[in-house]
Amino acid sequence: MEVSPTVADKDAHPRAGDPVFDLHHGGKMQTVATVALDGKDDLSMAYTPGVALVCEAIAADPSLTRHYTWVPNVVAVVTDGTAVLGLGDIGPAAAMPVMEGKAVLFKQFGGVDGVPICLDTTDTEEIIETVVRLAPSFGGINLEDISAPRCFEIEDRLKERLDIPVFHDDQHGTAVVALAALKNALRLTGREPATTRVVISGAGAAGVAIAKILIEAGITDLAVTDRKGIVHSSRADLTPVKKALAELTADKTGRAGSLADALDGADVYLGVSGGTIPEEDIARMAPEAIIFAMANPTPEVHPDIAHKYARVVATGRSDFPNQINNVLAFPGIFRGAFDVHATAITEGMKLAAANALAELVGDDLSETYVIPSPFDPRVAPAVSTAVAAAARADGVARL
Amino acid sequence: MEVSPTVADKDAHPRAGDPVFDLHHGGKMQTVATVALDGKDDLSMAYTPGVALVCEAIAADPSLTRHYTWVPNVVAVVTDGTAVLGLGDIGPAAAMPVMEGKAVLFKQFGGVDGVPICLDTTDTEEIIETVVRLAPSFGGINLEDISAPRCFEIEDRLKERLDIPVFHDDQHGTAVVALAALKNALRLTGREPATTRVVISGAGAAGVAIAKILIEAGITDLAVTDRKGIVHSSRADLTPVKKALAELTADKTGRAGSLADALDGADVYLGVSGGTIPEEDIARMAPEAIIFAMANPTPEVHPDIAHKYARVVATGRSDFPNQINNVLAFPGIFRGAFDVHATAITEGMKLAAANALAELVGDDLSETYVIPSPFDPRVAPAVSTAVAAAARADGVARL
Repeated sequence: MEVSPTVADKDAHPRAGDPVFDLHHGGKMQTVATVALDGKDDLSMAYTPGVALVCEAIAADPSLTRHYTWVPNVVAVVTDGTAVLGLGDIGPAAAMPVMEGKAVLFKQFGGVDGVPICLDTTDTEEIIETVVRLAPSFGGINLEDISAPRCFEIEDRLKERLDIPVFHDDQHGTAVVALAALKNALRLTGREPATTRVVISGAGAAGVAIAKILIEAGITDLAVTDRKGIVHSSRADLTPVKKALAELTADKTGRAGSLADALDGADVYLGVSGGTIPEEDIARMAPEAIIFAMANPTPEVHPDIAHKYARVVATGRSDFPNQINNVLAFPGIFRGAFDVHATAITEGMKLAAANALAELVGDDLSETYVIPSPFDPRVAPAVSTAVAAAARADGVARL
Repeated sequence: MEVSPTVADKDAHPRAGDPVFDLHHGGKMQTVATVALDGKDDLSMAYTPGVALVCEAIAADPSLTRHYTWVPNVVAVVTDGTAVLGLGDIGPAAAMPVMEGKAVLFKQFGGVDGVPICLDTTDTEEIIETVVRLAPSFGGINLEDISAPRCFEIEDRLKERLDIPVFHDDQHGTAVVALAALKNALRLTGREPATTRVVISGAGAAGVAIAKILIEAGITDLAVTDRKGIVHSSRADLTPVKKALAELTADKTGRAGSLADALDGADVYLGVSGGTIPEEDIARMAPEAIIFAMANPTPEVHPDIAHKYARVVATGRSDFPNQINNVLAFPGIFRGAFDVHATAITEGMKLAAANALAELVGDDLSETYVIPSPFDPRVAPAVSTAVAAAARADGVARL
């Protein structure tokens, strides 16, 4: 049917000729019908009066939502625009291109329908209440680019209140992929988790989540640093989140001091700080060190410098080997959770995702290949299969 | 890229073999990317790092949202599930098939991307706050199947607070199409609005909206009835909404009494009540009466009975001539509003839509053709063009 051209098609756009803006012109996604509407009969089935039968069936048995709506395959990509990429608090309107991009990646790599939701509030209670009210419309909630420490409380409380998967990708997506790469880097360098000294710089969303998943994976000597140095309980300036983090990490070993102190003799450095590290600090790490400098677009230490001291180097960038890219995790994790109609994403499901990712590297393991490429077609199926199995094992699968 | 099958594809569904349930299996819509993501270079443009340039541009100039996101073409189809079709308060989960259907109709007939949002609250304040917080994600808000009288306050207050179109389709979609059909029925029977006596049964969302648009269109002798008869100010039981309605309608003529009293000598009967009317009441209407019995699926009076006394008969059903179907209005109204990036949908835009619809009938006007078919390809372009022009005339167009 002929319709008017859309808004975006009608006008030349302000930055026409710039390849990035040309690509984003008109947005990056649309909705399409999966049913035909070619005449009265189609309309009377897909809409009134036929649709009333489906509504009545779901009213009588809400579990039929799974069969007769798009809900079980739809994830809301929810942000308040407070921590967008490295840009910080740019607000909900400016966050939309990232959320659309995320939705497109969900579909491309996981077959999951994503709907970008940019909220006009930064209040923790309001965000929680809003997402709870939206929940009947979605099969899962992917929280995105919400600043710390609010992101922790928002995720925790939504997980308590909702019986669908809730996942803060900046935390857990990063953590899953970093763990997968680290597992392979440890294997390559002949290390065991229990005897490996790890330093994480950055105690925000990603740093906290990486610390937690590494502990679950058997790392015992772990220090996390913020701008004031190692996060440990003798510091008087810790937020409740950092206090809890200290108790899980540096308090166990008694380590204190600066990032440089932490790196002295450390086996692994994981950067999610956005800062920079002097070469002399890196130089003090253990032989055959492992350095993941994941800040984007500027790694905490340039890979060329890192390689002078480290055997394995990874970054968040696509133009160096070993890219720690969340897209390796979130599409397959939601695909797996949705495939078994999971009520949550458990720690076991995240560990299973990391293991599945790590195992794909297999015998091809090398200094420049500790993690698969985002375009490796085995990734999403391997992750989703592992996540679905873990959901069943953890008792959160409804199928 | 190979991905796991979706939830819905994996299982036989409980009502397989029923054509309606087969059609709804897996839902009726999906999201798709409009950009290619075939390798690193695509990814670095559509997502990080390229997307950061777009975010920064929008942060500096929010009006660029119109060019570089999908937002300006997306309508949220929002319900609380309290007044779904004729089924009543069936809740947000059971409302989803209707909202998906509406979203699909928006796309099919108007090229508008619709996102169904079923809210887990029926509280007026919570619905308003939730929609306000969602607003940065959408180019417009279509309220749907929210029960009266809350629907009036919710729409009014959202219109005050938002600078995007807000439209309660159960009110205004129905009113626009009914007005269009009535204009042609008056033309056919040689009547003028100012000397035509109109009775509306049903003082809910549709009845109130039809009353208001008829007054704007020049009808002066208008009575609206509820279960207790004509709504007029001498009644002690009126809600604030009905009190205001009385002042606009029956108070002007002093009419009081039952629906049967109202119909005695009336020229036009418009039913949006869901009740039934005895044949003897219809029999008392003026010669060459006009009867629109719009209740679905059971008209207030069967068309065969109505035709014994009326020259023009319309219903809400597709299996009789003259279907009063909202799909004639809402896709073109939003298409027109979106095409000029309108800040609101004004009364002028609704009247323009009704006029455009009525005019499509032209010289083919007859007793069985007072309104175009929903599948007439001229409908959405004609409505959207008229609505866009009215938006400019009313000063709410940003393009």
